Amino acid sequence: MSLKSPLQEIRICFVGESFVNGTGDPECLGWTGRICVNANKKGYDITYYNLGVRRETSTELRNRWFREVSYRLSQKYDGRVVFSFGVNDTTIENGKTRVNFEESITNIHSILSEAKKLYPILVVSPPPIGNEEQDQRIADLSQEFTLVCQELNIPYLDVFSKLINSNIWLEEAKNNDGTHPRTGGYTEFAQIVENWDAWLNWFPTSQIS
Amino acid sequence: MSLKSPLQEIRICFVGESFVNGTGDPECLGWTGRICVNANKKGYDITYYNLGVRRETSTELRNRWFREVSYRLSQKYDGRVVFSFGVNDTTIENGKTRVNFEESITNIHSILSEAKKLYPILVVSPPPIGNEEQDQRIADLSQEFTLVCQELNIPYLDVFSKLINSNIWLEEAKNNDGTHPRTGGYTEFAQIVENWDAWLNWFPTSQIS
Repeated sequence: MSLKSPLQEIRICFVGESFVNGTGDPECLGWTGRICVNANKKGYDITYYNLGVRRETSTELRNRWFREVSYRLSQKYDGRVVFSFGVNDTTIENGKTRVNFEESITNIHSILSEAKKLYPILVVSPPPIGNEEQDQRIADLSQEFTLVCQELNIPYLDVFSKLINSNIWLEEAKNNDGTHPRTGGYTEFAQIVENWDAWLNWFPTSQIS
Repeated sequence: MSLKSPLQEIRICFVGESFVNGTGDPECLGWTGRICVNANKKGYDITYYNLGVRRETSTELRNRWFREVSYRLSQKYDGRVVFSFGVNDTTIENGKTRVNFEESITNIHSILSEAKKLYPILVVSPPPIGNEEQDQRIADLSQEFTLVCQELNIPYLDVFSKLINSNIWLEEAKNNDGTHPRTGGYTEFAQIVENWDAWLNWFPTSQIS
């Protein structure tokens, strides 16, 4: 199985927080690297830009994403963006969440509506972290992501509902640093994204000879 | 073999061009990911920030590096920076190099002298690309890196002289896109860095119990 040469080049920026970075994965791939490796195996030539930043909230991301993404994805190339963020908004500090719920929704809407004008984009939900109260807030935020993505006609993948039932994800997060899983958890995350039709549609196998 | 828990956390930004990005490696690790995987195997907990950007010159990097690095490495954490750049400066466009030699040297001095005030830093030479004329210009630039790093007392690793004699590196680059190798070449690059005392000194094994 091989593509007609040359391989189709695609440049993808993954934008978000520590889970996009792959924090905790000793193999330094996370879910984002794993899905790109598998796209390469299908015969694509992926330039993989990982723009996950630990502790970043959606308010901070709103001010960053365009500068870093546009610097890497010039109009000359086939550039695409995958977003996944939100967990840090829901963390309690000084008695309240780092970003209030309404502001998170405003940020999500702003980021995604701007991004979709410029690039093909996909959105992946924030994952659970294994803390019951915070996971409820993440689930609530994921519901808002669903609504915004429906409104903007952007493909949205709810990995939260699957990972909240994943023993591997939750056990690894608990035994690692209480938040981030290791290789097994990220592998599971990657498998969910890899089977998503919107991701698969980015890599049509009909081009494979 | 394991560290006294918790593992020592180190956050490392790798800053440079396509060879830092790992362009061409279907395993999406490049040399930077591979050396971090192996540091994790030694019992460290590395947060791996890959800030390689394709086609970027040292003039462009000079304007970018601080913003992106300082955004990821706050003073609260053990943050370090590895630089490797220069190839794109030596590319001929419109009859001349993209950056002239004197300006490259000025950029190198500016970037490294500023960076060393803020973080522990290491510098890795640009690699060869397999084009005789451009490789000579890269070698000349690498010699200037040597002088600047000596002056600033920054550890500098000349991978150029080794990779210019590497059949794997040169053959993969030639057979891939004429510039970037694939997994074998990046693995070889990684092994050179891994055996460098300045890199090894970042991960003392004396802490391992």
